[in-house]
Amino acid sequence: MQDRVREILSWYASDNPGTRSNIARLLNTGRLGGTGRLVILPVDQGFEHGPARSFAPNPAGYDPRYHFDLALAAGCNAYAAPLGFIEAGAAEFAGEIPLILKLNNSDSLTPGGDPCPAITGSVDEALRLGCSAVGFTIYPASTARNVMFQEIKEITEEAKRKGLAVVVWSYPRGSGISKEGETAIDVVAYAAQIACQLGAHIIKVKPPTAHIEQAAAKKVYEKERIPVGTLAERVRHVVQSSFAGRRIVIFSGGEAKETSAIFDEVRGIRDGGGFGSIIGRNSFQRPKREAVEFLGQVIDIYAGKTK
Amino acid sequence: MQDRVREILSWYASDNPGTRSNIARLLNTGRLGGTGRLVILPVDQGFEHGPARSFAPNPAGYDPRYHFDLALAAGCNAYAAPLGFIEAGAAEFAGEIPLILKLNNSDSLTPGGDPCPAITGSVDEALRLGCSAVGFTIYPASTARNVMFQEIKEITEEAKRKGLAVVVWSYPRGSGISKEGETAIDVVAYAAQIACQLGAHIIKVKPPTAHIEQAAAKKVYEKERIPVGTLAERVRHVVQSSFAGRRIVIFSGGEAKETSAIFDEVRGIRDGGGFGSIIGRNSFQRPKREAVEFLGQVIDIYAGKTK
Amino acid sequence: MQDRVREILSWYASDNPGTRSNIARLLNTGRLGGTGRLVILPVDQGFEHGPARSFAPNPAGYDPRYHFDLALAAGCNAYAAPLGFIEAGAAEFAGEIPLILKLNNSDSLTPGGDPCPAITGSVDEALRLGCSAVGFTIYPASTARNVMFQEIKEITEEAKRKGLAVVVWSYPRGSGISKEGETAIDVVAYAAQIACQLGAHIIKVKPPTAHIEQAAAKKVYEKERIPVGTLAERVRHVVQSSFAGRRIVIFSGGEAKETSAIFDEVRGIRDGGGFGSIIGRNSFQRPKREAVEFLGQVIDIYAGKTK
Amino acid sequence: MQDRVREILSWYASDNPGTRSNIARLLNTGRLGGTGRLVILPVDQGFEHGPARSFAPNPAGYDPRYHFDLALAAGCNAYAAPLGFIEAGAAEFAGEIPLILKLNNSDSLTPGGDPCPAITGSVDEALRLGCSAVGFTIYPASTARNVMFQEIKEITEEAKRKGLAVVVWSYPRGSGISKEGETAIDVVAYAAQIACQLGAHIIKVKPPTAHIEQAAAKKVYEKERIPVGTLAERVRHVVQSSFAGRRIVIFSGGEAKETSAIFDEVRGIRDGGGFGSIIGRNSFQRPKREAVEFLGQVIDIYAGKTK
Amino acid sequence: MQDRVREILSWYASDNPGTRSNIARLLNTGRLGGTGRLVILPVDQGFEHGPARSFAPNPAGYDPRYHFDLALAAGCNAYAAPLGFIEAGAAEFAGEIPLILKLNNSDSLTPGGDPCPAITGSVDEALRLGCSAVGFTIYPASTARNVMFQEIKEITEEAKRKGLAVVVWSYPRGSGISKEGETAIDVVAYAAQIACQLGAHIIKVKPPTAHIEQAAAKKVYEKERIPVGTLAERVRHVVQSSFAGRRIVIFSGGEAKETSAIFDEVRGIRDGGGFGSIIGRNSFQRPKREAVEFLGQVIDIYAGKTK
Repeated sequence: MQDRVREILSWYASDNPGTRSNIARLLNTGRLGGTGRLVILPVDQGFEHGPARSFAPNPAGYDPRYHFDLALAAGCNAYAAPLGFIEAGAAEFAGEIPLILKLNNSDSLTPGGDPCPAITGSVDEALRLGCSAVGFTIYPASTARNVMFQEIKEITEEAKRKGLAVVVWSYPRGSGISKEGETAIDVVAYAAQIACQLGAHIIKVKPPTAHIEQAAAKKVYEKERIPVGTLAERVRHVVQSSFAGRRIVIFSGGEAKETSAIFDEVRGIRDGGGFGSIIGRNSFQRPKREAVEFLGQVIDIYAGKTK
Repeated sequence: MQDRVREILSWYASDNPGTRSNIARLLNTGRLGGTGRLVILPVDQGFEHGPARSFAPNPAGYDPRYHFDLALAAGCNAYAAPLGFIEAGAAEFAGEIPLILKLNNSDSLTPGGDPCPAITGSVDEALRLGCSAVGFTIYPASTARNVMFQEIKEITEEAKRKGLAVVVWSYPRGSGISKEGETAIDVVAYAAQIACQLGAHIIKVKPPTAHIEQAAAKKVYEKERIPVGTLAERVRHVVQSSFAGRRIVIFSGGEAKETSAIFDEVRGIRDGGGFGSIIGRNSFQRPKREAVEFLGQVIDIYAGKTK
Repeated sequence: MQDRVREILSWYASDNPGTRSNIARLLNTGRLGGTGRLVILPVDQGFEHGPARSFAPNPAGYDPRYHFDLALAAGCNAYAAPLGFIEAGAAEFAGEIPLILKLNNSDSLTPGGDPCPAITGSVDEALRLGCSAVGFTIYPASTARNVMFQEIKEITEEAKRKGLAVVVWSYPRGSGISKEGETAIDVVAYAAQIACQLGAHIIKVKPPTAHIEQAAAKKVYEKERIPVGTLAERVRHVVQSSFAGRRIVIFSGGEAKETSAIFDEVRGIRDGGGFGSIIGRNSFQRPKREAVEFLGQVIDIYAGKTK
Repeated sequence: MQDRVREILSWYASDNPGTRSNIARLLNTGRLGGTGRLVILPVDQGFEHGPARSFAPNPAGYDPRYHFDLALAAGCNAYAAPLGFIEAGAAEFAGEIPLILKLNNSDSLTPGGDPCPAITGSVDEALRLGCSAVGFTIYPASTARNVMFQEIKEITEEAKRKGLAVVVWSYPRGSGISKEGETAIDVVAYAAQIACQLGAHIIKVKPPTAHIEQAAAKKVYEKERIPVGTLAERVRHVVQSSFAGRRIVIFSGGEAKETSAIFDEVRGIRDGGGFGSIIGRNSFQRPKREAVEFLGQVIDIYAGKTK
Repeated sequence: MQDRVREILSWYASDNPGTRSNIARLLNTGRLGGTGRLVILPVDQGFEHGPARSFAPNPAGYDPRYHFDLALAAGCNAYAAPLGFIEAGAAEFAGEIPLILKLNNSDSLTPGGDPCPAITGSVDEALRLGCSAVGFTIYPASTARNVMFQEIKEITEEAKRKGLAVVVWSYPRGSGISKEGETAIDVVAYAAQIACQLGAHIIKVKPPTAHIEQAAAKKVYEKERIPVGTLAERVRHVVQSSFAGRRIVIFSGGEAKETSAIFDEVRGIRDGGGFGSIIGRNSFQRPKREAVEFLGQVIDIYAGKTK
């Protein structure tokens, strides 16, 4: 095994060999295998936004098998999706790529107040379907945050007992903060810290902006002169906020549409010490050949094969 | 076994042999056995609308045994009903026709806000009564949707462990959408997708109209020029939205009263690649002889024996 | 065993022998034993209305043993009461008369909104105390109805697994209907249907009036010319609404005070095919000798020994 | 064993020998052992009112061991307290005096609406600490009453299965009644009845006044001419309302401060057939010697050694 | 073992040997080992205030291993933190210092009403990670207090069964009291009493002020002339309110920033018979060398090596 993978696994020394093996599987798969970097394909938009909004731009994506294929062809480390999508390919693609079963999901048919997703899967379902990890979204700053924190607490405890890894999507949203605050550097760093304290092995956050949301935080950022001017600096701060870099932190692709802008963002993540990207819509909404090429370039950036 | 049934079963490769056997039972029973099409008789109106509104037009239907008889005589694939109705015939008709135990129900004595049915049965009750599947209604767009999503998540996990099939009635309704939106093509397709993602084996939706409810969806339907002009086109879109046709999607008979209009609708479902119909009131509220003939014609349409 | 009892038991063919034995016990006890008719003594007023309002008119009733004695002396089929009252006589009267443990109760110290009783007993307590059945009150038309429906669903499933019979008091009440609607024929028939669909073996409703509460029902009653002019006709409709007479439906004594009015009511129930009566206050608030005579006459009416 | 204790145990014939042994222990301990009367020392004021308000008048009471000592020195039948206080002496005083673990408690830091105490102990904790009984407070007339009724239902079932006795503090309070109504004779009798129906072995109520709170009850008290003029008459009515005297009913010391007034009250309880007293603040807030003498006199009154 | 430790253990005679061993571990570790005094390092600010506000002043603290090191270097009795922080060092520092797993936590992204933390860990997680104790925060005076009381009741019962010690942070806060009341002497003493009654082994409160919050308490403090003029007097009253000194009560460092003020406070705690301090921000926000020296002086004060 690569030294870098061994080093990363050493951060998870309190976990049992089963869980550490699954973290290793995620790190050792795909074109970034062994580098300590990850690119993951997530496809939960069918549930979150509806089928046409998600798959009509590239109708091949209506078929659940397409995404397994895409993740494999592009050399991703893993594929993440809700129960139905995983179930519809898990047997056919058994053992071909690490799977992350997303255990909670929101739909967009009922606009509501502060977010609180429905639990739609379980640790036992993940085991049944041969997954390496479970995924879970928390919304810090939602008034329902404690519901989610307690759900992930239960799931984390069970997953660790049963040898799975835990990936937490930590997306601040809700009446505790402003819209701009959802990607503020202080808020994103705080969201990463919360996910780490809740016991996540891998944390996914959004690329942060230089905005600082909370007055009490602003004082400290200014007094301590924490550099947040460039994306790389901000990513470095988020990584530091994730137990001084001893937890795997990856970043979402967000809504950026210009491919070159995405590549710039990925370079910033890489240069700031981020561990990788998790890119959905920007991947599966392109024709497959384009998507493979696109993901290939993202992977090359992380692999250091391109600037 | 017919090749078509084998093909359909291959879509459920993640399920255990028990569940797949029960899906096969549903597909291999009745006059449509082996064709991959289904016509199911559902009778939950006694609970949902009250006994007189349901059975006075054809009083033979007060007797729970009548519906088992009707489903058998008409050559249906299965019979679906709540606990009491199933229990009152399950022993007498043991092994004669696949049964679907409906596990949640609403009554209409208390007009209320957004719908959230009561749980009225369980997977273990379905096993005790010799059923092949459990049925469950979700109301996407209800503010209580997450309660239902989490209930069906529990039921689905247990049913799959215990070898039963899961049929989900996915009826968008509630303060998230307009009345017209309940059958809008974008909403019905979304409702089908949600049921698929929740792990349903068979999904029941209403025949969709050409109305598009959500602004964000409308943009995509227009941009991608998704054809929704005819019922067949809309059914095709719903089937595509159900994992590219790799889940069984059937359609309710709705409130249409003119028999010829129903037959037209069934032809549209068939031509769009729908897997069948589930028709309650239009069946059991006629005298038995008429009902058998009516269902026979519906079956003939699906069987391709009539246009 | 009497043919009529065997016939009734055949309606419950999905139940295990334990449950059917207990239904048989209820049907074979007392002066109506073997006739398929039942008269049950229920005493939950101590909890529901308080001790003085319940027992001061006949202070012997303060003693829990009194009611066991009364039910035995009068030749009733069974005695029904909450935990405390059953517990206080179950050992002394072990095996002398079938007992029904009421598992939920309301008190009248806190006037409130829509009714939702407290759970005050369990199936295991019923087994411990040697009961033949559990009793449960549901209030269709209450906004809390689904809470009750789900409670009785749990209880019913457990009771049937453990060989007990289930008696459901189905009393429409709450903001879904008017005061007059609580005994409207459409509502009472609906309430009986709901209890049947929930899996009750024996259903208790109030004698219905000719009032029709729901507009949607009214149309059907008029169109189908369902006769509801006399009590016998209305009882016949309720019995029909209870799975075409294949569930045991009994009627409460209500608040009627004139003894002759009660006898008239009982004749109406009998003539409409009702299975019997469950009469509390009108029994235990009289001196014992009078009560025995009174219940004796009710029994005689059902036994056909008097008009 | 004394005949009176045997007689009392006969009322609990439905309970298992374990529970009956513990009731016997309560009845056979202390200076009133064997008489069928009880005087119990309860100390939950530290939780309910705070430490200084409870123990500053007699600082020895800050020490949990003090109350075990006091109950023993005074010849009480039992000592009742919350988890912390029992735990802090249970080992040292193991086997010396029957203990009652109070399983729910309210604090007075947050004035609120209708009362609903926190569960602070369990049946298993009572077993671990060698207790003979569990104690539980219900507040009939609180809008949260059903929560409490269902909690005590669970506890009662478990306690009876595991051989413990159940003592219920039944204190009407909340928006269902007036302040004066909390001790009204009709309300106190009703509260006793509810506790009996919920399966309590020993019921504690407050000494009732002659006030009648509920209009529906008032009619009956007047019509039936129930005597409620003297405390003895009212106690007799409460005892009658407790299953015709076949449940042990004891009375709290209330807030009375004048020692002679307390003795008068105790005489009234005794003369009305009450089974004893449970006196906290009036005991432990005096210096120990005075407290022993005070409780000694109360015991003498019950023992008939003084008028 | 030191006599003082034996004496303290004798107060917990109702606990099993496992729990008592863990209390002994806490008392016998570090520079205060054997004295009966404790200084504990708690680090939950990453969760409670966010990473930058907590660790930017001394960035070494971003690394979870730093705090294990600091607690060891300073000679603390134990280190307390949430799941993530404990997990990230438990394997590396296994067996080097007693650990306290904090089982509930609040974040400050969503300002809300009365506090109610999220459960973020469990007793089984504490066992898995080799902890000696679990920690839990209650907020008496919050309208959600009963939720927390019932949570700690469950946790306490399980921890005691499984041989762990229980440390309760008892911080009055919420709409029941004023801001000033949070540290009022009557309120702090009450908060200590509640934690004791809930079964805590070690109670952490804030150093109290001379303010008296509750009118009913004020009367008693004045009448009984309870001395609360100096911090030592107030600490003595809190210790007395904790079962007459038979429970371990420690005090938080609060927000005091002047080092000399902290030392004065510590002397007051020591002189009043307090058992020690639990000091977070004032420790880990200094450079390590300063922090070790600072904690060393606090320890010296408790050890009596300095005034």
